[in-house]
Amino acid sequence: MGYFDFVMSEVHGLRIKDLLDEKKAGRKVIGSYCVFVPEEIALAGNATMVGLCAGADFAMEEVEKILPRNTCALNKSTFGFKLGKVCPYLEASDMIVGENTCDGKKKAYESLGPLVSYIYVMDIPQMKSGQGRSLLKTEYQRFKQAVEKLTGVTIDAARLKQAIETVNNKLKAIHRLSKLRQAEPAAISGLDALLTNQVFFYDNPQRFTDSVNKICDELEKRVQKNDGVFPKGTPRVLMSGCPMAVPNWKLPWIVETSGAVLVGEESCVGERGTRNLVNASGKTVDELMDAIVDRYFQVDCAIFTPNPDRLSHVEEMVKAYKADGVIHYGLQFCAPYLMESIQVAKALEDKKIPTLRIETD
Amino acid sequence: MGYFDFVMSEVHGLRIKDLLDEKKAGRKVIGSYCVFVPEEIALAGNATMVGLCAGADFAMEEVEKILPRNTCALNKSTFGFKLGKVCPYLEASDMIVGENTCDGKKKAYESLGPLVSYIYVMDIPQMKSGQGRSLLKTEYQRFKQAVEKLTGVTIDAARLKQAIETVNNKLKAIHRLSKLRQAEPAAISGLDALLTNQVFFYDNPQRFTDSVNKICDELEKRVQKNDGVFPKGTPRVLMSGCPMAVPNWKLPWIVETSGAVLVGEESCVGERGTRNLVNASGKTVDELMDAIVDRYFQVDCAIFTPNPDRLSHVEEMVKAYKADGVIHYGLQFCAPYLMESIQVAKALEDKKIPTLRIETD
Repeated sequence: MGYFDFVMSEVHGLRIKDLLDEKKAGRKVIGSYCVFVPEEIALAGNATMVGLCAGADFAMEEVEKILPRNTCALNKSTFGFKLGKVCPYLEASDMIVGENTCDGKKKAYESLGPLVSYIYVMDIPQMKSGQGRSLLKTEYQRFKQAVEKLTGVTIDAARLKQAIETVNNKLKAIHRLSKLRQAEPAAISGLDALLTNQVFFYDNPQRFTDSVNKICDELEKRVQKNDGVFPKGTPRVLMSGCPMAVPNWKLPWIVETSGAVLVGEESCVGERGTRNLVNASGKTVDELMDAIVDRYFQVDCAIFTPNPDRLSHVEEMVKAYKADGVIHYGLQFCAPYLMESIQVAKALEDKKIPTLRIETD
Repeated sequence: MGYFDFVMSEVHGLRIKDLLDEKKAGRKVIGSYCVFVPEEIALAGNATMVGLCAGADFAMEEVEKILPRNTCALNKSTFGFKLGKVCPYLEASDMIVGENTCDGKKKAYESLGPLVSYIYVMDIPQMKSGQGRSLLKTEYQRFKQAVEKLTGVTIDAARLKQAIETVNNKLKAIHRLSKLRQAEPAAISGLDALLTNQVFFYDNPQRFTDSVNKICDELEKRVQKNDGVFPKGTPRVLMSGCPMAVPNWKLPWIVETSGAVLVGEESCVGERGTRNLVNASGKTVDELMDAIVDRYFQVDCAIFTPNPDRLSHVEEMVKAYKADGVIHYGLQFCAPYLMESIQVAKALEDKKIPTLRIETD
């Protein structure tokens, strides 16, 4: 984990220098707040995509002049990082991509717009219908054009295919890591695995992939030796719900210092965001764009209605990771996840899987 | 106002008998929670549309087992009326139309579905783009088919035209009433005018139109005689924000017993919902459906991003109704209106229009 701890210690240091060097060399930086913004398209346009900071409280007194107090902590944090000028990723971004997933984000971007130089808002469907898919495809095509305009690069099939493969390799490395988390005793802590899932949004893609594969090489040896980071028999917990953005490690820390181990995250910063690869076999831009839409349209965010796939995925993950129970993490005032958490808990409890719903900031 | 007071006193009595008589005669009843559900299409299919109850607290202990506590009062009320079995409109409805306007309603319908016999959910756009309009049109076409299936009536151009005219007549009567509210001193109280706007969703359309026109005849005489319900010079207030469903009269009652008069409602139960007519000149079903989409796509609900028309409309209404100030009414936990209220207040204060933001249940 040395590499990831180093990345995190330098997340507002060396990684920013990287980005500024890239910018000096003419590369554009695109900041995003959501897994629905496809990195494949940004990379194909020769841009770097980074996740923007939203995991800690800054400048809350200023934020509450612009947003209602009962706004979710993720949204407030976004504004705090901007108003407190403490997110170098946001300041380094040539284009900030917002998206109308939930009401809070949708309306917040209207107020964020005037504070930043270039905000681009993506329209996201609310239903997994034919029209919903077609809206997502149109929006990804519009995003592709916006990236091309920003970078001056025409995204052709070859570029798109290569970008898809780059992101697929990241995803495959994460899949390998997830698979290794199925071992009992747990070969890696949930906090370390979450950190890896968080760095996913910040690091250079190739370097990230290599580093995850290196951890996996090490973990494979540990698993063979039955070497755990917690004693055999430690209760195994699956976390499900809202994303945990850097440096939000509060709940995992409490769980893992209380005698349990986290074995999986059903979250946007976790398996919900990384579950599916893009089929890279298409020959034309349109075929490849369709394949990208196919990947993201499967993301089972609670903003969709209905969202039955999420219930199945939580159950499948409980089984795959041999979890003894589930903790549902809901951000206070996050209507989609808080409302859906009641269905999730009911579905799990019907199958006798112990479930705890936590609502926090 | 005698008629409207009578309707309200019999809202769970004679009006329900009306509906049950209609049902006995083979007519279907469609219940709705939102102005985006077009009454024109329901009427064209020979169905009756009614607004469903969501303005009072019932069975809250039961509701909070199904919905998070920090859910807006409108949503909780919807469930309370169902769980407490105190909404005869809901019980009488052959089809209940939900819609994914805000996150709260979108996710709540997933839990309401299993409690009622037939829920139909309409997908609503979030942006006023070409795709947004096309989504609304497709959804209205799908709704038309669902109504036809429910009633067995094929909606042709003649039926649609007649239904459009019926609803236009309701709207024109409301426009006439609104115009009369511009008089100083105020010829009608805000509480009475709000009641009229609320009865809009419950009463038989023709009877409603006739009754509003009768009030207007009376008000015209009052205005000629300079006869006010409050003294000349009473401060005039415009209410803007979330809808007030029957029997939610709390805030208007406080305002009008505190020495001010309400002269207009920029609300779904008010001018936001009634501002525009449908152009009835189309010859084909498709032309008329397009005209219906044109009416509703102009509704400037805070769920749209961006939503600049609403700011202009509030300002126009302040001028038209000679308001001395604006009270923005936001339901607690209603992210779209609470977040937009900050923009509304800023726009008004920039024009030196005094504004008070109230957040309540």
